[in-house]
Amino acid sequence: MNNTVKELMERKSVRVYEDRQIEQEKKAAIVEAALQAPTAGNMTLYSIIDVTDPELKQKLSVTCDNQPFIAKAPMVLVFVADYQKWYDLFCKYEDTVRTPGMGDFMLAADDALIAAQNAVVAAESMGIGSCYIGDILEQYETHRELFSLPRYAVPAAMVVFGYPVPQQTERVKPKRLRPEAVVFENTYRRMEPEEFQHELNKVTDRGEDFERWIRAFCQRKWNCDFSIEMSRSVKAMMNQWENKEQQTDEA
Amino acid sequence: MNNTVKELMERKSVRVYEDRQIEQEKKAAIVEAALQAPTAGNMTLYSIIDVTDPELKQKLSVTCDNQPFIAKAPMVLVFVADYQKWYDLFCKYEDTVRTPGMGDFMLAADDALIAAQNAVVAAESMGIGSCYIGDILEQYETHRELFSLPRYAVPAAMVVFGYPVPQQTERVKPKRLRPEAVVFENTYRRMEPEEFQHELNKVTDRGEDFERWIRAFCQRKWNCDFSIEMSRSVKAMMNQWENKEQQTDEA
Repeated sequence: MNNTVKELMERKSVRVYEDRQIEQEKKAAIVEAALQAPTAGNMTLYSIIDVTDPELKQKLSVTCDNQPFIAKAPMVLVFVADYQKWYDLFCKYEDTVRTPGMGDFMLAADDALIAAQNAVVAAESMGIGSCYIGDILEQYETHRELFSLPRYAVPAAMVVFGYPVPQQTERVKPKRLRPEAVVFENTYRRMEPEEFQHELNKVTDRGEDFERWIRAFCQRKWNCDFSIEMSRSVKAMMNQWENKEQQTDEA
Repeated sequence: MNNTVKELMERKSVRVYEDRQIEQEKKAAIVEAALQAPTAGNMTLYSIIDVTDPELKQKLSVTCDNQPFIAKAPMVLVFVADYQKWYDLFCKYEDTVRTPGMGDFMLAADDALIAAQNAVVAAESMGIGSCYIGDILEQYETHRELFSLPRYAVPAAMVVFGYPVPQQTERVKPKRLRPEAVVFENTYRRMEPEEFQHELNKVTDRGEDFERWIRAFCQRKWNCDFSIEMSRSVKAMMNQWENKEQQTDEA
């Protein structure tokens, strides 16, 4: 196994950071690694907001499901799926330009995530820990206001970075599912709940206690406020992108 | 610059492959690197379809905007945003389970892309080239059928892999935008078209010919069949995910 693959295998989320800035040249390398990521049609369908303002970090630590460690992260990058710049340019030069749709939304979000993961991998290689904050998908209207986002620029991912404290470095990485549960040949294979339970038990080691665990997990991760808010918020992003925000959205 | 960062910087898409299989242990390492990627709540909200059937590759080379090189790729992985397995398990154990929404769709797509990029980085480190095929977002109904995808499992990304022929290794990587055009501090900065044009000219070197170039680019990449199809198709995925496929979708 080469060193790069080893780093990919060992990388785990880091949520507690040393009180130490990330050096400017390392930060520049992380950002440049993101910019050098694959991008559809070489169009760079994203922007990166580098959150340096402590007050703004503080606000994000609240809007992103109340996670105080966000405010303490030395580096916070928001990856914005962004077709605004291209759309504005197309409209300047062409008379007829179709309006952006959901395919453009997804392609730009894909671009943003690919770039984000390059930043994560680059950071890891320099001993800098990171953590994705999926909750940036929540509270769209508030984040739009905080970042002055126009219609065709929406938050796709947020990553916070910092040097891990020793206790984080020593933390055991949570086990992942086996390839048998994730990789299928030529066709999707819908697992029976019993099979998926069996696979999850290899990871979570709940055994007899599985039912209690999965029911609590369902309440904590699915039937819960942040998760309901995330779907409301992403739907609002999509409606704005489709110029539908005034339309009632019935289920 | 360490070796990992160097690989991230130098990686470029590879579309012509040597007639040579990828060794099983290298393929396993690529897949395992994907599985070890960050994933929301350690839930692995994706599945990977390993396309080994030459006939299926051939079909994908047509459905994905007619790109014959796809059929010749030694390894083809489709990253599927997948909440089906969790939803089925939740429904087995809980009486009340909310139905999946657009936040879940996005979070699963994010997971899928993060895993895909780990696969790309792992491959690159072993001298194996790769190319994202964004066109997997098109022709949703056909791909759903080809892969037997249930409601809450949708294609998010496809990556094809192979050893590059020398001409591909020697190809100059297309320039990326400068950080000044992509990274903004604390707030989004909407560029005037003139400024974005200026930045694009540093990359494309079109100079006086810019207007002709951008108009042709707009026709080729935006006002074009594949792009219109992509937005139709992604909207169809979303409608199915929201259980709305029978509803008329007005613009």
